[in-house]
Amino acid sequence: MAEREVRLAELAERFGGEVLGRGDTLVRRIASLRSAQPGDLSFFSHGRYRDELAGTRASAVIVGAPERDATGLPRIVSPDPYLLFAKAARLFHAEIPVTAGIHPSASVAPGARVAPDAGVGANCVIGEGVRIGPGAELGAGCVIGAGVAIGAGSRLHAGVTVYPGCGIGERAVLHAGVVIGADGFGFALDAGRWLKIPQTGRVRIGDDVEIGANTTVDRGALDDTVIGDGVKLDNQIQIGHNVTIGEHTAIAGCVGIAGSTLIGRHCMIGGAAMIGGHLAIADRVVIAGGTVVTKSIEIAGTYVSVIPATPSREWRRTVAMLRNLERMAERLRTLERRMSGGGNEP
Amino acid sequence: MAEREVRLAELAERFGGEVLGRGDTLVRRIASLRSAQPGDLSFFSHGRYRDELAGTRASAVIVGAPERDATGLPRIVSPDPYLLFAKAARLFHAEIPVTAGIHPSASVAPGARVAPDAGVGANCVIGEGVRIGPGAELGAGCVIGAGVAIGAGSRLHAGVTVYPGCGIGERAVLHAGVVIGADGFGFALDAGRWLKIPQTGRVRIGDDVEIGANTTVDRGALDDTVIGDGVKLDNQIQIGHNVTIGEHTAIAGCVGIAGSTLIGRHCMIGGAAMIGGHLAIADRVVIAGGTVVTKSIEIAGTYVSVIPATPSREWRRTVAMLRNLERMAERLRTLERRMSGGGNEP
Amino acid sequence: MAEREVRLAELAERFGGEVLGRGDTLVRRIASLRSAQPGDLSFFSHGRYRDELAGTRASAVIVGAPERDATGLPRIVSPDPYLLFAKAARLFHAEIPVTAGIHPSASVAPGARVAPDAGVGANCVIGEGVRIGPGAELGAGCVIGAGVAIGAGSRLHAGVTVYPGCGIGERAVLHAGVVIGADGFGFALDAGRWLKIPQTGRVRIGDDVEIGANTTVDRGALDDTVIGDGVKLDNQIQIGHNVTIGEHTAIAGCVGIAGSTLIGRHCMIGGAAMIGGHLAIADRVVIAGGTVVTKSIEIAGTYVSVIPATPSREWRRTVAMLRNLERMAERLRTLERRMSGGGNEP
Repeated sequence: MAEREVRLAELAERFGGEVLGRGDTLVRRIASLRSAQPGDLSFFSHGRYRDELAGTRASAVIVGAPERDATGLPRIVSPDPYLLFAKAARLFHAEIPVTAGIHPSASVAPGARVAPDAGVGANCVIGEGVRIGPGAELGAGCVIGAGVAIGAGSRLHAGVTVYPGCGIGERAVLHAGVVIGADGFGFALDAGRWLKIPQTGRVRIGDDVEIGANTTVDRGALDDTVIGDGVKLDNQIQIGHNVTIGEHTAIAGCVGIAGSTLIGRHCMIGGAAMIGGHLAIADRVVIAGGTVVTKSIEIAGTYVSVIPATPSREWRRTVAMLRNLERMAERLRTLERRMSGGGNEP
Repeated sequence: MAEREVRLAELAERFGGEVLGRGDTLVRRIASLRSAQPGDLSFFSHGRYRDELAGTRASAVIVGAPERDATGLPRIVSPDPYLLFAKAARLFHAEIPVTAGIHPSASVAPGARVAPDAGVGANCVIGEGVRIGPGAELGAGCVIGAGVAIGAGSRLHAGVTVYPGCGIGERAVLHAGVVIGADGFGFALDAGRWLKIPQTGRVRIGDDVEIGANTTVDRGALDDTVIGDGVKLDNQIQIGHNVTIGEHTAIAGCVGIAGSTLIGRHCMIGGAAMIGGHLAIADRVVIAGGTVVTKSIEIAGTYVSVIPATPSREWRRTVAMLRNLERMAERLRTLERRMSGGGNEP
Repeated sequence: MAEREVRLAELAERFGGEVLGRGDTLVRRIASLRSAQPGDLSFFSHGRYRDELAGTRASAVIVGAPERDATGLPRIVSPDPYLLFAKAARLFHAEIPVTAGIHPSASVAPGARVAPDAGVGANCVIGEGVRIGPGAELGAGCVIGAGVAIGAGSRLHAGVTVYPGCGIGERAVLHAGVVIGADGFGFALDAGRWLKIPQTGRVRIGDDVEIGANTTVDRGALDDTVIGDGVKLDNQIQIGHNVTIGEHTAIAGCVGIAGSTLIGRHCMIGGAAMIGGHLAIADRVVIAGGTVVTKSIEIAGTYVSVIPATPSREWRRTVAMLRNLERMAERLRTLERRMSGGGNEP
C-alpha cells in the first residue's frame, strides 16, 4: 500500500462523482465495508451487503445513484461506482517495483537480449534469440523458448513457460503456471492410430493482456493463435490451436475454447463455458457461465444453456419427464385427432 | 511400505469390527482383491467386484455387514468397511521422512526463517520474511513469496507457487503445480476497456488441508480468500477471490467456484460442478458432479442439474422436443379450452 | 522447417492420392490457404474455407474427392485428405534434435541412470534410481521422483513433475506443467473429518502417448492408473486414481475422469466432457464435448447430453417449461380421462 492521504473531494474531482457530506474527509486506504477502519474508503453496491454498510467503520463510502441516501457517511455518489472504486483502489495501490537485473541462478542464452532495467528471476531459463523489453519482469523459474519476444513492462509470475517463437506484447501480466505455445491437439487417424500433425504456428499475444494461473494457450497448427489487445483471461482456461480472441474480451475461469474458433471483440464469457471448434462468435456476445456453445453466434446478446441445480428428488422426476417427452407429444396428438374428429365419437 | 505384521484380531481390536475365521491370520500389506498375494489384507465393498472376491489370493478381507458371508476367508466385518480399510492402510503405510535442511541450489532470502528440521528442496526460492514451521517440507522448485507462513508438518510437493502474504496452516499437503494467491479476476469496464482492480487481500489456508495438483486459489480483492480446517480439494479446482470454504468440506476435481461465494462446512461437491459468484451454500450440502449452481442453497440436501449422456440420435429428438415445449403447452391449452367449452362445439 | 523440395507426383506416390494438373509442381512447405506463398502446399477440406481456396497463392493443394474440381491449381485428390496433409506436414517438418547431456544446473541423484545420448535440461531434479532411456529429453525444471522410468525417445517439456515410482513408455510427449502420479483423491469420513487413504499405486503410461499442458494423472490407491499405448490427451485433463484408458483413445481438453473408471480402446472424448467414477466405457465409444457420463456405456456409438446455447430470454422460458413438465403431464392425463369418459360429460 502506498502511504498517501487524499480528501474525498479530490477523489471526486479526479475520477468523477458527487460528494455528499464532508468533502475534506481524509482517506488513505481502500477496504471492504466489513473490515474497514477509520481512515478507510469503502464501497457499497449489492443490496445484500446493506447490513455491512450500516455497521461499517469506514470514514467514507462510494455508492451508486440508487444508494444515494443509504448511509449518512461522507460519500461519493457515482453512476458507475464499481469503476470509481477501481480507480480509487489503483490510486492507493503501489505496484511492487521491478527488481532489475538477471539473478545469478538464471540461465540466459548468449544471443538473448534482456533490457538493462528488466528483471529475470532465480532459475529462469532464457533461450537463444529471446528479447525481453524494458521494465519487463520474469518471476522465478520461468522458461522462455528460443526466439520469444516479451514486450516492455510485461510481468510473468513464477513458473510461466513460453514455447519457442511466441510473442507477448507490452504490459502483459501472466500468472504462475501459465503455458503459452504448447502443441495444439492435432492428430489424423491412420488405420486406428493417431498420427501427430506438426504444430508449426505460434502464439501472438497483444498489449495489456492478463492471463490467469495455470491457463494454457496452444500454438497454431499452421497459422498463429492470436490473443487481442486488452483481453483478460482468468485461471485454468484452455485455448486451442488457431483460436483468435478479439480485443477487450474477458473470459472467466475454467473456460475451454476448441481449435480454430474465432471469438469477437468486447465479448464476456462466464466461467466453465465450453465453446466448440471452428465456430465464429460475434462481437459483444455474452455467454453465461457453464453454457455449451456448439454453433456460431452471429448476433450480439446473451446466450445460455444452463439448468440450475435442483433438489435431487425433483430433478430425477424432471429427467424422467424429459425422457418421456416424445410419448407426451404422441398422446397430445392423439387427443387432438380425437377432438377434431368430433367429441361424440369414441 | 512399512515392514510390520499384524494379526487380524489385533486390527479389529484397534479399529473396531468383528472377526470371522482365524483371528491369528497375519497380514502385512493392503492390496486390492485382484492383485493381493498371500499375506495381504484386502477390501470388498461394491457388489461389482464380487468375482474378484471369489478369486482373490488375499489372506484376509475387510467386508461390510451385508457381505458378512460373501467369502469364507478370514475377515473383519465392519459397519463402515471403507473407514476400517483407511485406518488399516494408514497403519501399514510409512510416510517418507522429511529430508531436513536447505538444498544448496535453493535461494532463501536472508530474513526468512526455516525451522531446523524442515526441508527445502532443490531450486526453491524463498522470499523475505517467510516462516517455514518445524517438520514442513518443500519439494523441488517451489516459489514462496515474501511474508508467507507455512505451518508445522506441511508438505508442498514440487513446483508449488505461493504468492506474497498468504498463510498455510499445519499438516497441509499441496500437490505439484498448485498456485496459491494469484490475483483474483477483478476488472472494471472503462469505456470498453478493462481496468484492473488491485487484488490486495490474501489467501488463508487452515490446518489439515489437502490441495490437489494444478489447483489454483486466488487471493482476495480486499479481504481474504479463506480455506477452512480439514478442507480437501482435488486436482485442477479453481477457487475465485474472496471465496470462503467451510471446515471439512470436500471438493472433487475440475470444480470452479466464482468470486465471493461462501461454501458451508461438511459439504461435498462432485467433480466438474460449477458454482457461481456471490452465492451462499449452506452446511452439509451435497452437489452432484457436473451440476451448475446459479443460486444460493439454504437447505442441506443433495442438488443436481445433470442430464445423463444419451445415444446421439435419441438426444437430438429430446433437444428438438425441448425447443418445442412452448408450442406443446399452447396446444394443451387449446385442447383444454375446447374441452371446457363443451365437446360438441367446433 | 526442413529445407527440401518435393514434386507433387512424388508426394502422391509416397502417400497415395491422384494428381490433377502438373505433377512436377515443386513444393517445399505446408501452409494454410490464407497464408500460403508460391512454393507452398496447402489443404482444403471445410466448405467454409472455399473463399480462401479461391484466393490462395499456394502452388498446389490437397483436396478431398468431393472437392476434386473446386480449384484449377495443381492438386492431389485423396479419399482422406486430412491424413495426407498430416503425412506431408511431417515430411516437411524437421524435429528439433535432442541436446544430449546433463545441464550443469541439474541435480541428478548418484543412482540415477541417464542414457548418454539423452538430454536433461537446466534445473531438472532427478531422483534416486531413475532411468532415462536413449534419446529421451527433459526440458528445463522437470522434477522426476525416485524410481521413475522414462522410455527411449520420450520428450518431457519444461516443468513436468513425475512422482516417485511411475513409468513412462517410449516416444511419449509430455507438455509443460503436466503432473503424473500425484495422490488420488481418497479420503474416508471419520466422524465428520476426512481421513487420508495412502495412495500406494503408481501411474503406468504406455508407448506413443502424448499428454497436453497442465494435464494431471493421479497415481492409483492400491493398483495402478494405466494409460494405454497410443493414447492422446489434450491440455488440462484430469485423470483420477485407478482409471484405465485403452489403447489409441483420444481425449480433448478440460475433460475429467473420476476414479476407477475404465475407458475402452479407440474412444474419442470431446472437450470438457465429464465421466463419473467406477464406470466402464466400451471400445469405440464417442462422447460429445461437454457431455456428462454418469452410467457405464456398453455399446459403441456416439453419446451426448448437451443443450446448445440459446438466447437468454428464450432459454428462461424453456427452463420454466422444464420445471412445469409434471404439471403439463397432469393436465394431459386429466384431458385423457375426460375424453375417455365421453366428450359430453362435464
